[in-house]
Amino acid sequence: MAKEKSPRRPRAETPKGFRDYFGAEVTERAEMLRRITEVYHRYGFDPLETSAVETVEALGKFLPDVDRPNEGVFAWQDEDQDWLALRYDLTAPLARVAAQYRNDLPSPYRRYAMGPVWRNEKPGPGRFRQFYQCDADTVGAPTVAADAEICAMLSDALETVGIPRGDYVVKVNNRKVLNGLMQVAGVLDPADPNKFAHERGIVLRAIDKIDRLGPDGVRALLGEGRKDESGDFTKGAGLSDEQSSIVMLLTDNELSVDAAARLLKLKEVVRASPIGTEGIDELAQIASLLEAQGYGPDRIDIDPGVVRGLGYYTGPVFEAELTFEILDDKGRKRSFGSVAGGGRYDDLVKRFTGQSVPATGVSIGVDRLLAALRAKGRIGQEAAPGPVIVTVMDRDRMADYMAIVAELRAAGIRAEMYLGNPKNFGNQLKYADKRQSPVAIIQGTDEAARGVVQVKDLILGAKIAAAASVEEWKSQPAQTEVARADLVAAVRRILGNS
Amino acid sequence: MAKEKSPRRPRAETPKGFRDYFGAEVTERAEMLRRITEVYHRYGFDPLETSAVETVEALGKFLPDVDRPNEGVFAWQDEDQDWLALRYDLTAPLARVAAQYRNDLPSPYRRYAMGPVWRNEKPGPGRFRQFYQCDADTVGAPTVAADAEICAMLSDALETVGIPRGDYVVKVNNRKVLNGLMQVAGVLDPADPNKFAHERGIVLRAIDKIDRLGPDGVRALLGEGRKDESGDFTKGAGLSDEQSSIVMLLTDNELSVDAAARLLKLKEVVRASPIGTEGIDELAQIASLLEAQGYGPDRIDIDPGVVRGLGYYTGPVFEAELTFEILDDKGRKRSFGSVAGGGRYDDLVKRFTGQSVPATGVSIGVDRLLAALRAKGRIGQEAAPGPVIVTVMDRDRMADYMAIVAELRAAGIRAEMYLGNPKNFGNQLKYADKRQSPVAIIQGTDEAARGVVQVKDLILGAKIAAAASVEEWKSQPAQTEVARADLVAAVRRILGNS
Repeated sequence: MAKEKSPRRPRAETPKGFRDYFGAEVTERAEMLRRITEVYHRYGFDPLETSAVETVEALGKFLPDVDRPNEGVFAWQDEDQDWLALRYDLTAPLARVAAQYRNDLPSPYRRYAMGPVWRNEKPGPGRFRQFYQCDADTVGAPTVAADAEICAMLSDALETVGIPRGDYVVKVNNRKVLNGLMQVAGVLDPADPNKFAHERGIVLRAIDKIDRLGPDGVRALLGEGRKDESGDFTKGAGLSDEQSSIVMLLTDNELSVDAAARLLKLKEVVRASPIGTEGIDELAQIASLLEAQGYGPDRIDIDPGVVRGLGYYTGPVFEAELTFEILDDKGRKRSFGSVAGGGRYDDLVKRFTGQSVPATGVSIGVDRLLAALRAKGRIGQEAAPGPVIVTVMDRDRMADYMAIVAELRAAGIRAEMYLGNPKNFGNQLKYADKRQSPVAIIQGTDEAARGVVQVKDLILGAKIAAAASVEEWKSQPAQTEVARADLVAAVRRILGNS
Repeated sequence: MAKEKSPRRPRAETPKGFRDYFGAEVTERAEMLRRITEVYHRYGFDPLETSAVETVEALGKFLPDVDRPNEGVFAWQDEDQDWLALRYDLTAPLARVAAQYRNDLPSPYRRYAMGPVWRNEKPGPGRFRQFYQCDADTVGAPTVAADAEICAMLSDALETVGIPRGDYVVKVNNRKVLNGLMQVAGVLDPADPNKFAHERGIVLRAIDKIDRLGPDGVRALLGEGRKDESGDFTKGAGLSDEQSSIVMLLTDNELSVDAAARLLKLKEVVRASPIGTEGIDELAQIASLLEAQGYGPDRIDIDPGVVRGLGYYTGPVFEAELTFEILDDKGRKRSFGSVAGGGRYDDLVKRFTGQSVPATGVSIGVDRLLAALRAKGRIGQEAAPGPVIVTVMDRDRMADYMAIVAELRAAGIRAEMYLGNPKNFGNQLKYADKRQSPVAIIQGTDEAARGVVQVKDLILGAKIAAAASVEEWKSQPAQTEVARADLVAAVRRILGNS
């Protein structure tokens, strides 16, 4: 390769799929997470912060037949040739911790974790390769009381951050009900769990596509197969019409049928399946535990129509859905949708220790929930006020301006001295504008000699500049001269917290 | 390679040099950073959170003559063959942001950042490959008022987190004073900055070793050279005795000479050097700006004896030193030492844009400062109380226990229901002990029928178990029966916040 003539300057860019967060983006997220933390704490959950870096082996993403770990994680080889990777969620590190510290941790172990995770996936609009998760899990609790607790806590967390009751519902379903339906439909044989595994895979993937394909499309995939618009044919699970109808009961989420009625119907259908009956009983138990705590179906609802996550989880599954409407890209109304999901998963620790440990938990999509709070006008409606700007009129009197700014800060007022080149006073006011400062303090030699300062109300000034007559503007009602000793009081008056 | 017979279980371990943070370790750090954030906010600094991943090119650690980026960073190649890396500090990402958003950011731009950074270095005791930094920088402010502001803010931050006045001092020096001494000593020629570069390197490295080698060792390195204990000879800078004496003035940090006196002496010595004189003047200006804000030398002191960082920075340098004594590994008293450092650095953005942008800032060593607060007894003295534990006496009455726990939480009391296997009641009390619970709630069938609960004061119980006679123990003063309706009040009474 030919040597370049002059060294190229580096590009000042984030890597593809990564982004920076400025000002309110950082503080609003921190505040939301702080409130969620308070709820988790009250429920007895303890914080856990694992390192961002794990061994690929511990993450469980290593494919032994390729040189590099598979797609999906950012991984590299360290000096000992071990593969390391950035965590892709907060559950895999919890599994490692639960195994590593199993003799020291309380059992059950309730923990919450919040922080960035990384995915080596194709970035897209709104899809980043680093994003926040906020998880709470209970490890070592076999009882569905643990699942009910997670649901109650999720409900409290949503209300605490500012989603009003009535604008959300935590929906609860159970993987065992699906298993029961499969057993009744003849694609699950408890005596030989591996039998029909291929068919069950097709059934699960089909049910998961209900929103996109509609009932007819799903029914086709459950039966012989489906031809899509392009003419491509996907082979189906080979269920009879009757079998398909049984499995389809799960997706029957017509508004005309309420959840309780559907649950009763399902109970009837899965009667012949022990696992299905167990699933229905667990849902009833969760409902009664929640009712005892005062969580009615307006907040947490048993809903066998919840399909998401049924493939991954082994028992109860939860999904928090925001029910208020927003406008989509095309200006159509649609409900905001899911902001959190979770459920019960077995064998969390088994990979490491061989011992089965039951666990249940929830993960809140931090960016989704922030977007919801913005859509509801709970945050980001008006920019937080910037600092008071103490302008520099006289370069030799920096110490005086520093004393002013120190006095304001000591009074708890956010304040700055202008630290750029003070020569052009217009630049100082432009800076104040960019900082969204509510107030500018001005003190020239003359004012200093008279022991006064000019206090300029920049918000009022902007209103006058936009609307007022030349006479009003000239009279400068937005600027007041006050005695130097009255500075803090005058600023407080303008800030509205006198 | 022979195929293994059975798949080996993954090891449940953090990668070498990484660690997990549990419970109070997480909350204490979060609380300390929250307090520091409040101070930074009051000073008009805005939060910035950059991604953990940067291009190696932007980080500036890429050595073109090797396949992999140099040691010190964790780096990998993405699918486009670009090298990506984890940030190793918060300053390099700031440089990238200042260049990338230079048309959008206010100028000067004050920002703070806190978060983990990663170093691919050999781990050791207390040395981890992921650790927290907490930085504040002002970009685009040429005036030393910006440096003075950083020092005042650092002083406020230390006091706010709990380091009392008198237990710390922020020391301020100036790289230009060293340059002046070098010029006077004849190893800096302003007309040809590259001349004597080799000698200056030796001088800087020698001065930096003052604590380890002592004045004689440094003097030897400044002169002909130094033979160490093993007999190895290090070639010196070749300064004459007189030249060495001039440079050594900087390191003359005997307690008998106060900072002001040494500053005067230095001013005299560097009179012939414009850069040296400028350095002294800047220090005087910083002192007067700080005095105007009420920061005397008890908090922020001009100290030409501060050597650390003089090689890296281009103007004023700062170091926050904690002056209280702790015992070292060998039981000897020594002062706690440095917890933060910073200074002025040019050419932050120049790498990217070609334009020089002045900047100054400080970085707080988060783990060091936490260790200091622990040493001072400000945090971690007593474990935060655990949650109230509602025990499970009767598996069929889970809903009742859930109602109890919900009532406690609604009253703002941290509470848990026991979620493990309730069969063995002793295990429940062991769990409460491990969770450091102050109170256990017990309600068997009998109590339920009578509408009462047993409230067990576990802290008092532990005291009695340790010290009391068998009679006292039998009388169970630590356990009280109260009406179910009085539960919250009874728990509050024990928790001491009735």
